[in-house]
Amino acid sequence: MAEAGAVPGYSFGAQATARSPLDLEELDLLKQTVLFTEEDEEYLRLAGDVLEDQVDEVLDLWYGFVGSHPHLIRYFASPDGEPNARYLERVRERFKRWILDTCRRPYDQQWLDYQQEIALRHTRVKKNQTDWADETPEHIPLRYVIAFVYPITATIKQFLAKGDHAADVVEKMHDAWFKSVTLQVALWSQPYTKEGNF
Amino acid sequence: MAEAGAVPGYSFGAQATARSPLDLEELDLLKQTVLFTEEDEEYLRLAGDVLEDQVDEVLDLWYGFVGSHPHLIRYFASPDGEPNARYLERVRERFKRWILDTCRRPYDQQWLDYQQEIALRHTRVKKNQTDWADETPEHIPLRYVIAFVYPITATIKQFLAKGDHAADVVEKMHDAWFKSVTLQVALWSQPYTKEGNF
Repeated sequence: MAEAGAVPGYSFGAQATARSPLDLEELDLLKQTVLFTEEDEEYLRLAGDVLEDQVDEVLDLWYGFVGSHPHLIRYFASPDGEPNARYLERVRERFKRWILDTCRRPYDQQWLDYQQEIALRHTRVKKNQTDWADETPEHIPLRYVIAFVYPITATIKQFLAKGDHAADVVEKMHDAWFKSVTLQVALWSQPYTKEGNF
Repeated sequence: MAEAGAVPGYSFGAQATARSPLDLEELDLLKQTVLFTEEDEEYLRLAGDVLEDQVDEVLDLWYGFVGSHPHLIRYFASPDGEPNARYLERVRERFKRWILDTCRRPYDQQWLDYQQEIALRHTRVKKNQTDWADETPEHIPLRYVIAFVYPITATIKQFLAKGDHAADVVEKMHDAWFKSVTLQVALWSQPYTKEGNF
């Protein structure tokens, strides 16, 4: 993944990235809760191959969804309602990378730590900082982050279906994706919670 | 729903129930985020008819899942690891009712308020109180509540499929269920969050 440096603000594995409050044993318990197995890892890798050349189309759809809902686009906009194009573009590149990381990265401690970094970038602690977008709202409310499990899961299926795989394989890729998105959103809730509530 | 009184600790619509911090306009924005429409309401009502006579089997499956994972059953167990049978049984009756409420209740302010009551019953504020289960852990960590979106969604499909409806109708009932579960878990996160983070 030598091209990592080309994605603005993408700091996977960097020394300065956040550290997860969870260890791999605790991650394993969370994986068990979403029934995530090695088979899901295999189907996610397959999904990565199917999605690799479609990430721009996926982002077009997701950004279209956000852009058509004033209560969502406002988190990328200045107080006068004007969306911040540079901020949107930088996040878009990282979002594309996130799709492939979700499919291809091993879910090890480094990955777990980067989930915490992503988590913080939704909150008052780090949102806007990476992209100098100080005029946009200082966080995305947790309820919307959780709600996104649905659109991010439901909309990916049509792209998974374009890979010439049998319907049952598409179903399994989609199921693995659903598990992973749920797992990650669970991890991203941490910095929003009161001490001891996560 | 005259039989409501028969469900232990079920206090839907009661004066003493919690009040949601959200109003119906804010609920509507959350519905839009999970793409929840009137069509989903219709498919949920249909799902209610399909699930009505299967709620015991659904709960058998869900309780089997929780019971076979020590990191989950512990939230129903005393410090020595012994599951509290009375607590489990009382929650089970409410869980059955929750399935039907999810399918059949209008998502109005009364429903929204009861989501807050359910939310609090996962947390230090009200867990155990309703069922006098003081020896069990005082809350369920938020990450597990969010993670449950997956098993609660994935496992319902086999039951929806038993209703003699065409595959595309089963798919639409399942999709509506997925949206609703995601919406409700988003609502349930509120009491776990720091002030202003929800």
